[in-house]
Amino acid sequence: MWKVIEKGLTKDRIELNGSKFLLANGYMGYRGTLEEHTDKELAACVLSGLYDRFEDKWREPVNAPNGFYTKVYCDGVPLFAPNQNMINHVQSLDIRTGVFERSTTFAINGKKVTLNSQRFLSADDVHLMCLRYSVTAYEDCYLKIETGIDGEIWDINGPHLKNFVYKTDNKTLSLGANTIELNVPVYVSANIITDSELITEYTSSKILAIIDIPLKSGQTYQFDKMVSVYTGLDTNNPLTDSLTGCCKDNYNDALIRHKTRWEERWKTSDVVIDGDKRAQLALRYSIYHLMCIAPHHSDRVSIPARGLSGQVYKGAVFWDTEMFMLRFFILTQPEVAKNLIRYRINTLNGARRKAAEYGYKGAFFAWESQDTGDDACTLFNITDVFTNRPMRTYFRDKQVHISADVAFGIWEYYLLTGDKDVIINGGAETILECARFFLSYAYYKPYKHRYEILDVTGPDEYHERVNNNAFTNKMVEYTLKATRNALKLMWNNAPDDYDKLIHKLGCADELAIIDEFCDKLYIPQADKNGIIEQFDSYHSLEDVSLKKLKEKILNPNEYLGGGNGLATTTKILKQADVVLMLTLFSDEYSEKIKKANFDFYEPRTEHGSSLSSCIYSILASDIGDSQWGYEYFLKTAEIDLNGSSKQYVGDLYIGGTHPAANGGAWMATILGFGGVRLKESEVCISPRLPESWNSLSFCIKWKNSDFRIEITKNLVSIAASCENKANGQFNIKGSIKNCSAGDKIACHY
Amino acid sequence: MWKVIEKGLTKDRIELNGSKFLLANGYMGYRGTLEEHTDKELAACVLSGLYDRFEDKWREPVNAPNGFYTKVYCDGVPLFAPNQNMINHVQSLDIRTGVFERSTTFAINGKKVTLNSQRFLSADDVHLMCLRYSVTAYEDCYLKIETGIDGEIWDINGPHLKNFVYKTDNKTLSLGANTIELNVPVYVSANIITDSELITEYTSSKILAIIDIPLKSGQTYQFDKMVSVYTGLDTNNPLTDSLTGCCKDNYNDALIRHKTRWEERWKTSDVVIDGDKRAQLALRYSIYHLMCIAPHHSDRVSIPARGLSGQVYKGAVFWDTEMFMLRFFILTQPEVAKNLIRYRINTLNGARRKAAEYGYKGAFFAWESQDTGDDACTLFNITDVFTNRPMRTYFRDKQVHISADVAFGIWEYYLLTGDKDVIINGGAETILECARFFLSYAYYKPYKHRYEILDVTGPDEYHERVNNNAFTNKMVEYTLKATRNALKLMWNNAPDDYDKLIHKLGCADELAIIDEFCDKLYIPQADKNGIIEQFDSYHSLEDVSLKKLKEKILNPNEYLGGGNGLATTTKILKQADVVLMLTLFSDEYSEKIKKANFDFYEPRTEHGSSLSSCIYSILASDIGDSQWGYEYFLKTAEIDLNGSSKQYVGDLYIGGTHPAANGGAWMATILGFGGVRLKESEVCISPRLPESWNSLSFCIKWKNSDFRIEITKNLVSIAASCENKANGQFNIKGSIKNCSAGDKIACHY
Repeated sequence: MWKVIEKGLTKDRIELNGSKFLLANGYMGYRGTLEEHTDKELAACVLSGLYDRFEDKWREPVNAPNGFYTKVYCDGVPLFAPNQNMINHVQSLDIRTGVFERSTTFAINGKKVTLNSQRFLSADDVHLMCLRYSVTAYEDCYLKIETGIDGEIWDINGPHLKNFVYKTDNKTLSLGANTIELNVPVYVSANIITDSELITEYTSSKILAIIDIPLKSGQTYQFDKMVSVYTGLDTNNPLTDSLTGCCKDNYNDALIRHKTRWEERWKTSDVVIDGDKRAQLALRYSIYHLMCIAPHHSDRVSIPARGLSGQVYKGAVFWDTEMFMLRFFILTQPEVAKNLIRYRINTLNGARRKAAEYGYKGAFFAWESQDTGDDACTLFNITDVFTNRPMRTYFRDKQVHISADVAFGIWEYYLLTGDKDVIINGGAETILECARFFLSYAYYKPYKHRYEILDVTGPDEYHERVNNNAFTNKMVEYTLKATRNALKLMWNNAPDDYDKLIHKLGCADELAIIDEFCDKLYIPQADKNGIIEQFDSYHSLEDVSLKKLKEKILNPNEYLGGGNGLATTTKILKQADVVLMLTLFSDEYSEKIKKANFDFYEPRTEHGSSLSSCIYSILASDIGDSQWGYEYFLKTAEIDLNGSSKQYVGDLYIGGTHPAANGGAWMATILGFGGVRLKESEVCISPRLPESWNSLSFCIKWKNSDFRIEITKNLVSIAASCENKANGQFNIKGSIKNCSAGDKIACHY
Repeated sequence: MWKVIEKGLTKDRIELNGSKFLLANGYMGYRGTLEEHTDKELAACVLSGLYDRFEDKWREPVNAPNGFYTKVYCDGVPLFAPNQNMINHVQSLDIRTGVFERSTTFAINGKKVTLNSQRFLSADDVHLMCLRYSVTAYEDCYLKIETGIDGEIWDINGPHLKNFVYKTDNKTLSLGANTIELNVPVYVSANIITDSELITEYTSSKILAIIDIPLKSGQTYQFDKMVSVYTGLDTNNPLTDSLTGCCKDNYNDALIRHKTRWEERWKTSDVVIDGDKRAQLALRYSIYHLMCIAPHHSDRVSIPARGLSGQVYKGAVFWDTEMFMLRFFILTQPEVAKNLIRYRINTLNGARRKAAEYGYKGAFFAWESQDTGDDACTLFNITDVFTNRPMRTYFRDKQVHISADVAFGIWEYYLLTGDKDVIINGGAETILECARFFLSYAYYKPYKHRYEILDVTGPDEYHERVNNNAFTNKMVEYTLKATRNALKLMWNNAPDDYDKLIHKLGCADELAIIDEFCDKLYIPQADKNGIIEQFDSYHSLEDVSLKKLKEKILNPNEYLGGGNGLATTTKILKQADVVLMLTLFSDEYSEKIKKANFDFYEPRTEHGSSLSSCIYSILASDIGDSQWGYEYFLKTAEIDLNGSSKQYVGDLYIGGTHPAANGGAWMATILGFGGVRLKESEVCISPRLPESWNSLSFCIKWKNSDFRIEITKNLVSIAASCENKANGQFNIKGSIKNCSAGDKIACHY
């Protein structure tokens, strides 16, 4: 259950496979295309954290020149999959080790030739990408192999590279260029390990080594290619470092080091499902994606909404990270979670600039955050399919919950790790700045004696500019409470830093108002039927069925939200909104309320976002509806395996991988089926395994203690690690158990 | 200069002429179609104040069966203008007397016949409509005349009449029916005054008298038709009353009484322009329209946005009445103004219901007000021309300035008439209820220590749901100040009524808050360039030129506002908004600010509303730009003469007459060119006549005193009437003059 395999290849699969077979190491992502593929097949090596803007187009990540590029000619005929000469093809991704393989057989004028390749992006040295490539002939033939670095790369809003420079030296090739906007150098060097002679060729933006080989029947020719990528963000000498980087290791040793890293990751992160192979593969595949795109190496980047699978959504970081992925990392690899948190702290000034731009105080985080934290989101984000005109959307200026999501992530990280350092060094400041933003954004309604949050867009983006979105108001309340607690923590643990902070922000007199704001903030409550209205006057919208609404669709890509969208004036929602609130604040709502809202909102949810299904799955488990829980889990966990997600909104391409769904699949499993609720003082477990599952096993790291948990149909077993003086209180459906270093406890439920 | 004449007739003129040649008497309006015209030519007798809803269509005014219907057959060939037999046609409207005439000559098989008719809707007996009809033959021929009451009437959202009943008695015919929704009986009776024998015929919804006449060459046959219309809203016996009504008078006597009434009206209302015949006719034509549709007879109706020219805009009363027409009536026929004011007081409960519907206190007046004051405006008012889907607009729920407009009208009426009675009897209550509505609507912004008015649509409907629309906020401030003053007046003049009112509304504790609200309400101020921002963040919208914007139009009827409208995200505005505020509160703003805002907003105004040009004309005069002032005046004053207004928005027909523009033409003349500013304590006059005008003469009734004012190039002459102990203080460009009963004063300027 560790391999994703696909046999055969047709043109229409190339784009989806590019995402499905993604290799990545946090620093870069390499799409699951084949070595002979170029920009036309959307081959791309996406760099994390390096953004560029070309002319007035959208600013997006830079794709490095393609260091894996290799093309073989057999008797002068190019071997290219898929084409009419291809007679067999299989490609696979080993998600345990992050290794991609392909094997393709061609028949050229009756002569059979097989290409094999194996490749990986090193998890040990994130600049390194390694390829082992071989050709086997079944008849005598003459091969010409061209392998090198291809600067003609796929760009959505490019080109992003200019001034290509070349360098060759014996078996190494280098190709360098500079980004357009910031003039950052990007260097790719390749060390081609072969005994054959190489002849070097250049074209405008490509450097190639040519190998001419006569091959006898049954003979195999193989070479390794070690590629190293450095940019001016990494080093002052990207050319030297990439040249050194590609020569310092051989393929086999690099592979061993790479696999060791992956083994370490899985040790803390694997989830074993007994009894359901389909779910097992889908979940592991989701975890693979989370781990391969996570910034293990840096706190200057986070995880973009489409991971490292391309330039979609401008390579920007959305709320997805905090709300859908962070929990996984906090509980399995808190050092990565810390990087994600620190990315927000490091981009606080961008959030301050955005708040000031709109006339607010504090920090209004970017809806689409890149390197500086300034907002990459445009005001006209979608094209109207009926008029071909840009359509004004309110993602950037009205989805204020982003600042609460960031604050939530930081404080959750602290609660579950106990890491005060992050709070004292920027965390409290960031949370406080979010609270100050909301204070300057809020209004007081004298008539109702309460504060309100007006004119916002909640998670359900089909309903823009609404008042008192329940989710948003609740998240703002959380932010205000977290502010109190974070400042208290600082006051108690670092009083000098506290004083400095309050002095720096000049906000001493605001603290009392923040308290009042918190106490008088309106939080929409359940009505007599238990329904929490998604926002003011939601109930007055048209109550059309999803089916009827969809029958009105005139163009398959038409946007259902926006000014005149079909859903805009109806109760149909894009994604979990109130339901998300009920999963985040599960303890505060009765099962009756959760059930009432699930029943009410579920049939009205279009799931136009890949962030929706996992939340419905978690709430379904919470209210004991394992059927819905399982269906929504599969929908989430398999999204990148079967490529079933939306590819276009208007004329906007939104394909790629779905890290938030990947994180959602993990949450649906651990929080949903496992029924794990993590609090500051204890871990609650109320399992509700799907019928076919015999057991569910996983590790969590909670407040610096490692626990291995196994849940069967009627038993929860917990083993505490000896290593880190583990100690924790567990609450298994009401039974309180302590589990300390080396303990193994079990509890029937 | 009293006659509007049109020679010839083509099919495409019929619709426009229906409005252009309108007869009306406040109770009903009869379109300027010909007697042989039916529903196909949009013949209609529109009843004021009687509304009906058919199925789920828009509720709209009821058209009475057509009592003027008459069709002549010459040798069996029907005489119908225009058709191929018509060889000559002329029709005219005498705007001094409200009399319509037509003369049409046909050639039937070489024989010439001329139809002549003269008709009027009695200004003396508003139920009465009179027709004198004659046929002259130039060769021997055989005439068949059918004249009667045609129940097959034009309806936009009908039919509105059911259960037709007929009655004939010697020379009288009656046709009755009941409205669909409220079952109100509508009766039309006709008395045909002729010596000839009548044969009566019925068809499904038509009653006809047939006259067979052989006519000799040179001979004329003439008959009179006296028609009376009563509904169940007027009387318990509409049939009896209409039968009595059509028989009590002969044509000549009725005409004399009718003309006498018109003479009285013109006496107080005429405006004489010396030196500009075009302007003179256009202005008198505008005044004619205002006087013919005004409710002289009732305080249960007001003036709909398209007058009595049809069912367009549901026959509903908009802010147009208070803001564009009321001033004319206050100053020339205050008894009509009082009816208009009392209509609002009488519909206060409808406004209360609307406020309560949205969760507010007080009175939220209907954007489209009919008989009860409940809002006839629908949420989906326009059809998207690209998708054919209904488009959500925010006229009904966000154009809250309507309540301030109503309050403004009531208080202005008091200030300029001194009529305390209206304030004590409902006026103060209505103003207070508007203030209470705004108090419950408003928000306090702690961050800025001020109240704000959020989420409104201002007069510029292309920008919906904006915050702190300058016009709206200023009007709310006026309402709050008027509330203070109206309550003070009541307290001083009718303390018991004051106590009762405060007790009834239970709002004693709100009065102090209303004061605070007034003091701390945010009123957008001029920036360093003198520009007052139309609403928060208006300046951040795209600054496209009107020309460029119009080049993007894909469909001539596409709506420029709404969710995805071309103007929505730009600075292009539909109509005067800030500029309207500057004319209403002219004294509070410097000439520099007025000029800056005129120059800024004028090129950005699309004038998509017929309410726009007159306001620009007034402000242009105010800042001394007579060129702009004159151009915009003509655009306003000639709108119904040349039919140059928009006929469609989306697929919505919006043709008809434009009373607001008619009132605007009067305001542009008196307030603009005359430079008359009416205050509670004095009348200021700062004339700025257009170059070609030698003089401008008019009457005003100010605080129950009648004055005749003549303005020449350098002299203002004022004559006070002896009749009503006239007394007033005049301020002619700084020279203070008193003018008492019988005085004639003159002042160079």
